[in-house]
Amino acid sequence: MREEATAFVPGHITGFFSAHPDEDPTKAGSRGAGLTLTDGVELTVEPATGDESSVVLNGTEINIDPVVTVLETLDATARVEADAELPIGAGFGISGAMALGTALAGNRVFERKLSMNELVTIAHGAEVQAGTGLGDVVAQAHGGVPIRLEPGGPQDNHLDAIPERARVEYVSFGGLSTADVLSNDTDQLTAAGKQALSRVVEEPTLLSFMYASRLFAREAELLTERVTETIADVSAVDGQASMAMLGETVFALGTGLSDAGYDPSVCATHPAGAMLR
Amino acid sequence: MREEATAFVPGHITGFFSAHPDEDPTKAGSRGAGLTLTDGVELTVEPATGDESSVVLNGTEINIDPVVTVLETLDATARVEADAELPIGAGFGISGAMALGTALAGNRVFERKLSMNELVTIAHGAEVQAGTGLGDVVAQAHGGVPIRLEPGGPQDNHLDAIPERARVEYVSFGGLSTADVLSNDTDQLTAAGKQALSRVVEEPTLLSFMYASRLFAREAELLTERVTETIADVSAVDGQASMAMLGETVFALGTGLSDAGYDPSVCATHPAGAMLR
Repeated sequence: MREEATAFVPGHITGFFSAHPDEDPTKAGSRGAGLTLTDGVELTVEPATGDESSVVLNGTEINIDPVVTVLETLDATARVEADAELPIGAGFGISGAMALGTALAGNRVFERKLSMNELVTIAHGAEVQAGTGLGDVVAQAHGGVPIRLEPGGPQDNHLDAIPERARVEYVSFGGLSTADVLSNDTDQLTAAGKQALSRVVEEPTLLSFMYASRLFAREAELLTERVTETIADVSAVDGQASMAMLGETVFALGTGLSDAGYDPSVCATHPAGAMLR
Repeated sequence: MREEATAFVPGHITGFFSAHPDEDPTKAGSRGAGLTLTDGVELTVEPATGDESSVVLNGTEINIDPVVTVLETLDATARVEADAELPIGAGFGISGAMALGTALAGNRVFERKLSMNELVTIAHGAEVQAGTGLGDVVAQAHGGVPIRLEPGGPQDNHLDAIPERARVEYVSFGGLSTADVLSNDTDQLTAAGKQALSRVVEEPTLLSFMYASRLFAREAELLTERVTETIADVSAVDGQASMAMLGETVFALGTGLSDAGYDPSVCATHPAGAMLR
């Protein structure tokens, strides 16, 4: 057993998606596309001193089901300490990042000798089971600008990617509950998500991704007033912005939000997937 | 059309492999595992000023079939200028890197709007057709320490990875012709490659990868005298070394070669796959 291991997992903004439930959480998930971000979660796992696992995020002890499930699957009692450079609960895939980072670093600390796909499957299944996300984990394991052509973990899904990089700006006004949105009727959302995916498969560029994402947000009726206004402000200065799924968050390519007079956080797409430090 | 675009593609050392021919070069390829490297190829594509494409590697104009095929597939007449930080023709996947880098940067310059998988398929097919490699391109598109579970391009293959990173040292005594080795009877090589893959799938760690690679090099009868001696020197100081497929090159984890008194090049595994700069 090692003393500790540290992993970095990029944040992930989903531009659009369709939900695909399945009884097996490793086969359930979503289709869609998004941006992985240089802003993410840095997470250290060490063996617990007592009999119980604990999870600390940005200095505060929290309860987070996907991480607990990952640790149980690894048969590990650990202390997990994470720092997120991103707003929490606002559509950046923090829970997925914590699940995946715990799997990666936990595998190393407890010498479980699992493969990358096995670790991603564990983290994806834990996240789906907890209802905190459907596609973040597989995207965060991939890096770049992943297109999720099929739902599920690495044994089932099929990924492609948009071969581009970009500076990314974002502002967040708060959270939306993934669980709440997904517990509603998702037929309209899924129809809009499939249409958006067709468009991006047809033309896998960042510009077409942003266009498809905006259309999806409107057709799935997920836009809030502040988000609508902010996207319009960016459009007014010829920028490209859309809404992060699911949060009251607007992201833009390049200097879209700055040009529109906002004071955004600035990062970029992350070329690599989750990695040990 | 853009003025130019630059891509970086990590080098790739194959530890072991089995060859899987197919009439369709996008389905042909190899199974196996290897290390992608922070030492690699940086490559710039710009539209040609005349009617013909040209390729320059480390300041010298060269003929390199996979790059020509990629440019033809992209319907592009271009000048490709590449710098390799690695020995050429010595088992580091330079030709694969040049094919993939040309696909990525060429797609951007000539605005072909292809997806990452489409670009990887084009580069992989061009490399297989030219006989210069079987698995480097898909590994170089993935990054990290990829395990190639199935041969072929992204539509057909299935990748996993060893979730570790390492410092990597290497010394090269010269080249071996991939085409020559592959034109011989490859039955013994393929049997050894399958056995090595089983071992690494069973235990996906760097240590088991190095062990499987050494066994493969011996059983496939690819070891030269200098390579055998060097690997033995590293073993004598409790280091882990093996032979790069296919070159007269020895690579080691950590400080294996330095500890044995060699003066190696030093790099590390590369967490990301090929990327635009």
